[in-house]
Amino acid sequence: MPIHPIDVILHKRDGLALTDAEIQSFIRDLVDRTPEKQLVTDAQIASLLMAIFQRGLDTRELATLTTAMRFSGEVFDATPLHTFTIDKHSTGGVGDKTSLLIAPILAAAGLSKPTPAGAPGICVPMISGRSLGHTGGTLDKLETIPGFDTQLNLQQLAAVLKECGAALIGQTPRIVPADRILYALRDHTGTVESPFLICASIMSKKLAESLNALVLDVKVGSGAFMPTYEKSKFLAELMVRTGEASGTRTAALLTSMDEPLGRFSGNWVEVWECVDIMQGKRHPMSADLIELSNILSGWMLHLAGRAATPEAGAKLSDEILTSGEAYKAWLKIIAAQHGDTAIFKDPAAFHKPTATRTLTASKDGYLSSMDCKQVGWAVQRLGAGRAKPGDPVSAHAGIEMHAKLGDKLEKGQPLVTLFAEDESLLNEPEHMLQQTLQISTTPPKPQPLIREIITQ
Amino acid sequence: MPIHPIDVILHKRDGLALTDAEIQSFIRDLVDRTPEKQLVTDAQIASLLMAIFQRGLDTRELATLTTAMRFSGEVFDATPLHTFTIDKHSTGGVGDKTSLLIAPILAAAGLSKPTPAGAPGICVPMISGRSLGHTGGTLDKLETIPGFDTQLNLQQLAAVLKECGAALIGQTPRIVPADRILYALRDHTGTVESPFLICASIMSKKLAESLNALVLDVKVGSGAFMPTYEKSKFLAELMVRTGEASGTRTAALLTSMDEPLGRFSGNWVEVWECVDIMQGKRHPMSADLIELSNILSGWMLHLAGRAATPEAGAKLSDEILTSGEAYKAWLKIIAAQHGDTAIFKDPAAFHKPTATRTLTASKDGYLSSMDCKQVGWAVQRLGAGRAKPGDPVSAHAGIEMHAKLGDKLEKGQPLVTLFAEDESLLNEPEHMLQQTLQISTTPPKPQPLIREIITQ
Repeated sequence: MPIHPIDVILHKRDGLALTDAEIQSFIRDLVDRTPEKQLVTDAQIASLLMAIFQRGLDTRELATLTTAMRFSGEVFDATPLHTFTIDKHSTGGVGDKTSLLIAPILAAAGLSKPTPAGAPGICVPMISGRSLGHTGGTLDKLETIPGFDTQLNLQQLAAVLKECGAALIGQTPRIVPADRILYALRDHTGTVESPFLICASIMSKKLAESLNALVLDVKVGSGAFMPTYEKSKFLAELMVRTGEASGTRTAALLTSMDEPLGRFSGNWVEVWECVDIMQGKRHPMSADLIELSNILSGWMLHLAGRAATPEAGAKLSDEILTSGEAYKAWLKIIAAQHGDTAIFKDPAAFHKPTATRTLTASKDGYLSSMDCKQVGWAVQRLGAGRAKPGDPVSAHAGIEMHAKLGDKLEKGQPLVTLFAEDESLLNEPEHMLQQTLQISTTPPKPQPLIREIITQ
Repeated sequence: MPIHPIDVILHKRDGLALTDAEIQSFIRDLVDRTPEKQLVTDAQIASLLMAIFQRGLDTRELATLTTAMRFSGEVFDATPLHTFTIDKHSTGGVGDKTSLLIAPILAAAGLSKPTPAGAPGICVPMISGRSLGHTGGTLDKLETIPGFDTQLNLQQLAAVLKECGAALIGQTPRIVPADRILYALRDHTGTVESPFLICASIMSKKLAESLNALVLDVKVGSGAFMPTYEKSKFLAELMVRTGEASGTRTAALLTSMDEPLGRFSGNWVEVWECVDIMQGKRHPMSADLIELSNILSGWMLHLAGRAATPEAGAKLSDEILTSGEAYKAWLKIIAAQHGDTAIFKDPAAFHKPTATRTLTASKDGYLSSMDCKQVGWAVQRLGAGRAKPGDPVSAHAGIEMHAKLGDKLEKGQPLVTLFAEDESLLNEPEHMLQQTLQISTTPPKPQPLIREIITQ
């Protein structure tokens, strides 16, 4: 007997748990509908989304919704490679470029121990997103590399993985079509911020990679997408439960996003920073980025069975980074995706903003606080991000931070340098940064980078 | 500064009270939108409706929403007549035909004391609806009268009121267009049952008649639209507060709908029953109908200043009925709206069902209980109601009850007679009635017709 969308709405509206059949039917109707045959209308979808926003979902409902969305289109499956597939997902931050280090670190580990069939022992099928709002996007950063192709189909993805152990690609239109429909509606019906809907959206796309394990970097602090520590933690718990329920080992790290991660925030400048690190040039401002990348990679290596503990994994990660193995894997991945690796010889030379301005400390003191979200918006306004999906982004826009929270400053000392492709774009971001970067006479209470770890 | 629909949704979603400007802007966008300029989408409206369903509205928000809807199209205004405008609204029942008695009773009272300008002292601009679900519709009943025109425009309505003191018409497409849009969406997004949205829908349409006073008949019991006594009472309280907030004196009577009201349920049969009463032929089965009509009319006469108390008003109402004044006013109204009054000479002769069947008591005992909603559905299945808006209804289908709850029955005594225009339509309703009409050895506890009165 067919299940009518209206009954699904009524049940959730009244606070009942939806049956698996109800959830599956609703998602199928949503994907199968055509303009001629509106199995479910936008209004009905919006109504259910608001009902879910208000009433929530229990663990089973959320797992079923996530699975129904995951299988709403084509899925990637690395089973033929007989490898261990693992990925990392971040809820998004400012200057958060760990993916560009973690993918080659894990790839190097995978290539170093191939399977009997000759495939890398670990594969990272990393499907990333674009900049949105105040957060950067891995795809936008990668696409500053001339020739680099992020639009691989799943066959090409498998081929790059087999050769390189990792691939860095964008969402294909055929993966999780249900999320595209739901997200577009959530975006304009006020239902974006539901932790249940956020979890289903993130996890359906990640689990469509048929992962053995997943490490989640859930940001907390003023630059995080979620507005409070508690909400970030709640989302992390939902995602870990949902991942584990579908048979994917899942760990979530709550990490600080109170200031931009590393030295640069933007697009090419972030690739540049990572290339420097992989080439062994460790700028002092990159210390937090390297630490977080090693910790996340450490968890991944641990879950993949390459390290007895996450701590041992982090140590192994740093060795892979230091030894140059990560850089070798990076060059291999970029080349396999048709990127021009020649530019990595002098990445600073490829940084060509036409407008630059440096903000200096207005007084002696300590860099004591900032609204990291405001810093992210300043980067977006410089041209590195987009106001709405589909807008172009500037390759050369961004910022370079010259101090970390707690650093002692002397009046006139450089605080942050702004880059843009047009002089006129500097004023508003300069004002925003000036407003938010606070200097005071006492240093702030230091926050650990890793705040909490959620596992099941 | 324009208010974006998304912000209205977000505020209600998060449990905030909406500002008057937000509510007014949303309703304006909803009415002003065109296919080319979607100021607000169906999905956004559905999302707000579900948010209101979950979060509710406070007294001010509800009054503002109702007023914004009321003025979303054209309104009727009897000010030029210098009369007292009053109406009655029922939440709908089975065999509920009080409108057909109340309109002529009040019209007669109005005609008997004209204003100095020559208009009736009281006017009843009664805008009614059609049968829906298990409940009957005044318009469907009236349209069984040959030639009777319910589709008057507001100019014609004013003319009939001036001549007759009452008019019985249907909703025009230009009155409260916001409700038509909202209702269509509520109907398919699971947001029909919100008392706040029900109140705004009912009251916006009634208040668009620019009433001095309004009497509400809110049904309780197994045949009521609202599922519990408490919910009916809550709705009644909302409607009274909303009416009073807009300057309309409003009283609500909670009345029993545990069995069909009066003798007949259907379309022409209900007109017949009322004509009989107005002609002085009081069938014993019509006693509850007459009592309720007098009580409701009594409240209206009281609010209109024609009776010191509702009780005195009910007495006056019965006098108007008994004296034949109500029947005279009835003939005047029907003629003014082009109805053929000749058929009232022998209303029984106009009742021409082609199929009739009588159900008898299966044993000795008392008629002890029924699911009155089931009885309403049986009437609908006989052809008197409609499965969906726009379906045709049968003029001659319906039922005649031969006993009231608590009546003593002997085995074989007639219980209910079914009428249809096709023999094949009798079986299912017969089965439904057989199932629901319960006979037991002890009489049921009698319920008063008037359960509670809500005023401010």
